[in-house]
Amino acid sequence: MTATPVCDDGAAAPWGTAEFTERLRAVAEDRYHDRHPFNVRMHQGELTPAELRRWIINRFHYQRHIPVKDALILAKFDDPALRRVWVRRIQDHDGTAVGQGGIERWLRLGEAAGLERPALWDTARVLPGVRLAVEGYVNFCRLRPALDAVAASLTELSAPGLMRTRIAAFERYYPWIEAEGLAYFRTRIGQGSRDSEEALALVQGWARTREQQERAVAALTFKCEVLWALLDAVDRASDSVPTGPADGVSGDAARLVSEHVLGDVSPLVSERTSGDASPLVFESSSGEVSPGVVPPGLSDSVASSRARRPAQRRPRAARDVAGGDAAFGASGAAVQAGTASASISTKVPARHPGAPVQTDTPVVPGPAGGPP
Amino acid sequence: MTATPVCDDGAAAPWGTAEFTERLRAVAEDRYHDRHPFNVRMHQGELTPAELRRWIINRFHYQRHIPVKDALILAKFDDPALRRVWVRRIQDHDGTAVGQGGIERWLRLGEAAGLERPALWDTARVLPGVRLAVEGYVNFCRLRPALDAVAASLTELSAPGLMRTRIAAFERYYPWIEAEGLAYFRTRIGQGSRDSEEALALVQGWARTREQQERAVAALTFKCEVLWALLDAVDRASDSVPTGPADGVSGDAARLVSEHVLGDVSPLVSERTSGDASPLVFESSSGEVSPGVVPPGLSDSVASSRARRPAQRRPRAARDVAGGDAAFGASGAAVQAGTASASISTKVPARHPGAPVQTDTPVVPGPAGGPP
Repeated sequence: MTATPVCDDGAAAPWGTAEFTERLRAVAEDRYHDRHPFNVRMHQGELTPAELRRWIINRFHYQRHIPVKDALILAKFDDPALRRVWVRRIQDHDGTAVGQGGIERWLRLGEAAGLERPALWDTARVLPGVRLAVEGYVNFCRLRPALDAVAASLTELSAPGLMRTRIAAFERYYPWIEAEGLAYFRTRIGQGSRDSEEALALVQGWARTREQQERAVAALTFKCEVLWALLDAVDRASDSVPTGPADGVSGDAARLVSEHVLGDVSPLVSERTSGDASPLVFESSSGEVSPGVVPPGLSDSVASSRARRPAQRRPRAARDVAGGDAAFGASGAAVQAGTASASISTKVPARHPGAPVQTDTPVVPGPAGGPP
Repeated sequence: MTATPVCDDGAAAPWGTAEFTERLRAVAEDRYHDRHPFNVRMHQGELTPAELRRWIINRFHYQRHIPVKDALILAKFDDPALRRVWVRRIQDHDGTAVGQGGIERWLRLGEAAGLERPALWDTARVLPGVRLAVEGYVNFCRLRPALDAVAASLTELSAPGLMRTRIAAFERYYPWIEAEGLAYFRTRIGQGSRDSEEALALVQGWARTREQQERAVAALTFKCEVLWALLDAVDRASDSVPTGPADGVSGDAARLVSEHVLGDVSPLVSERTSGDASPLVFESSSGEVSPGVVPPGLSDSVASSRARRPAQRRPRAARDVAGGDAAFGASGAAVQAGTASASISTKVPARHPGAPVQTDTPVVPGPAGGPP
């Protein structure tokens, strides 16, 4: 056995750049979620429409938080030049105008799969395991040093290959999903290559000691675990979720629960704290302020964009019952999912008359279910 | 005395929008730092060149952190439309290309006043009271809810008026500062009006209860205190700082102190942790990673921008002594200020032959001095 080289002070000597890079790439390949059973089934054409839709809804919870974690990373940079590089990631997902950006493209993927936008914005439909995975990643970027947060982004080293595999699989096995719905995947091939090259150069430049290099590898490992855990939650949900339209909870029942849990809630307050606000960026201690709500008069572009958001189109019963995630246990989440299921499109995409019938299977466990 | 109206639950009733807005405007007017004695003297033409330069250097510490606090605020927003509005603030200061943006314009203000860029980037030259004020504001935006952080930005309600006063004062009383150096102030007139209108609409929309309204007013009051405290520190420094070239510490003395404090530090490490990195965005627990350093090969635009940063141009003695702020007490900071004073331009701006002679007065207290 060869002894590990050490520095004069007894610490392990840093790896050379080539070896360090090889270790990062090995993690990004060996532990990437393209090997997860759910992704394997997806790419072999074995997912049911309900499973694909469940994945689209739950993965959107990750997608909508990408600009949040990138803003938290940007705030760690002292150099305007570096911030200019990183701010582009925020704009890649938010777009620079209404109707642009990766979040918009994911919403269109949902529409291509027969899901209306409110179904994706509704955080009550997100599986607990997915919430925890996303929250863990965002807080990692919030709390860890820049080196760790940027190293965690290096899963993008493997993303372009996954995108190519996915596009081919969707075109071959899931033709009922409209082709233009795949624009998100196509766009990410180029963006992911560029992003990962930039991040790799930063990590190589910053990690100079063995301790820093090992921290970078650990951060990338953690990120792979986040993506894996997200798919675990989506995969296991299919084994346990109740079935049946709206989870057996009608609009009237939802209203009864609403009054029981929330008391006399004015429509104004209940709409402003509707379930589509992410609790992760919902930092008001009072729980009554939704930063996601742009008041009228701010700007035309914002107002028109806001009009595309789901709260205004959600059925009244859903608005009444939605009082902020903090107010709900598992049963409340199930009720919200039940009412929100009305937002699943009943229209089969016109260009794909052979599309399967909607199953309306709820994507969160019922009141009696634990975390998946 | 009229009793305060109360809600059914006993809480004070919210103010109407007009009264709430009036209370915010009253704070932004009554407590704004345009009334601070230092600003009053500035606008009456009573500042010495050394005082103006001290202000330019110390206020830059605030300027360079504006994109940091705005990224922390952006990370609280769940709505892509709102993030698109707010990301523009980051770009207003960082620019979208090398040589653009508010930070660049402030650096040019410094150059117009005879200060080379390294003097502004050098955090060791920043007064402790200024550091604390900026750190307090950034952490307020990091830790408080979106309502509070956005309300704190409403000092911009009064900024355009201050900018106009300042431009007139500089043109009249400080003609030795080149006119193009005032571009920052001119740009902020329009940006400040737009920013404050947007932020006011958000705060009006979010603060629906009296408690929220009072929190917004308190946040704006806090922000006024931040700006006031910053000027307090700049103002008082003139009473106590030692005088004399380079604070009596020559380059050789600085090197001796460097070796005493840091031991055998390789040039690579000492350059990467040079004193121009802000400790506020310098989150590595090891203190050895500077997120501000863009490694070679990242991109041409970044690399060329980085080449404009001061580390490469700082005298060797200054690089050797700069080992990260955490390694220094007050005496170390004074030594850094002493060596960095070599970066003050000895050239009188060509277009203003009547410009006063440089005084080279250090802007941080000497080894024996406490916080100003």
